[in-house]
Amino acid sequence: MKKKRIGDTQCPIARGLERVGEWWSILILRDALHGFTRFDQFQQSLGIAPNMLTRRLASLVKSGLLERRLYNQRPPRYEYVLTEKGRDFRPVILALMAWGNRHFTPEGKALLLVDAKTGKPAELTLTDRATGKPLTDKDFVFRPGPAAKAKIRERYAAN
Amino acid sequence: MKKKRIGDTQCPIARGLERVGEWWSILILRDALHGFTRFDQFQQSLGIAPNMLTRRLASLVKSGLLERRLYNQRPPRYEYVLTEKGRDFRPVILALMAWGNRHFTPEGKALLLVDAKTGKPAELTLTDRATGKPLTDKDFVFRPGPAAKAKIRERYAAN
Repeated sequence: MKKKRIGDTQCPIARGLERVGEWWSILILRDALHGFTRFDQFQQSLGIAPNMLTRRLASLVKSGLLERRLYNQRPPRYEYVLTEKGRDFRPVILALMAWGNRHFTPEGKALLLVDAKTGKPAELTLTDRATGKPLTDKDFVFRPGPAAKAKIRERYAAN
Repeated sequence: MKKKRIGDTQCPIARGLERVGEWWSILILRDALHGFTRFDQFQQSLGIAPNMLTRRLASLVKSGLLERRLYNQRPPRYEYVLTEKGRDFRPVILALMAWGNRHFTPEGKALLLVDAKTGKPAELTLTDRATGKPLTDKDFVFRPGPAAKAKIRERYAAN
């Protein structure tokens, strides 16, 4: 029997998760969004074995979230630069950070997103770009999109 | 040598990821946020083996994201209800959905978040609650929080 893959579905959440690969890859993306590009920067930050890091970077390159670029000819040295897809992952990182900060920092917050102009910590809210309404509003509901097949169409049909 | 755990750090992103457990658990949270509470609902949705689902549900209960409740005495039947921590995971799901929809739906979108009043798809934006400024603004930077130890303090020091 074929093992069920998480991306074997039309759900955009599952599709996205499949591209990320695994937890550690999210931390690589976190570091890349912080500005890290080089193998040794990632390794020092994550403290994982070089062969593991190599594999994870290769997987993110394959998924199109990082681009591998030669930055030194002799000896050949590569850096890993975020693609547009990779940069677009930032909202997920920020949402994870807000959630982690709210619930899993009993000793106090170690990392904040701050408005550099005022020094005040940001408080993350999700809003609809066009109307400015918060997405927590009960008006916002999941609905099947134009490409939805039966499973999603049934589940998310308007009640 | 002790295996490095992803949550062995002060970073709130890593702390949060450790609590979630694994990819499939995110899809369980997605389904719970959709309103599913019963084992057979999750199983039908995810199509995974019962023993796998049992383990994942137990892990989410242990992390405090789901609460297991008896809803039928004879025979004993349990349902899985989101806790406050679990409900607070919704922004992560929405951010993942927007990212997946943008980049990994070549055949068109199968799932949308829609304003039920107008029928228009929402476009997710992250804003600062107090000022309404989008968090993509260059003003927003990571800074060490009051509980930061040396590693985070050094990495995120103001330049």
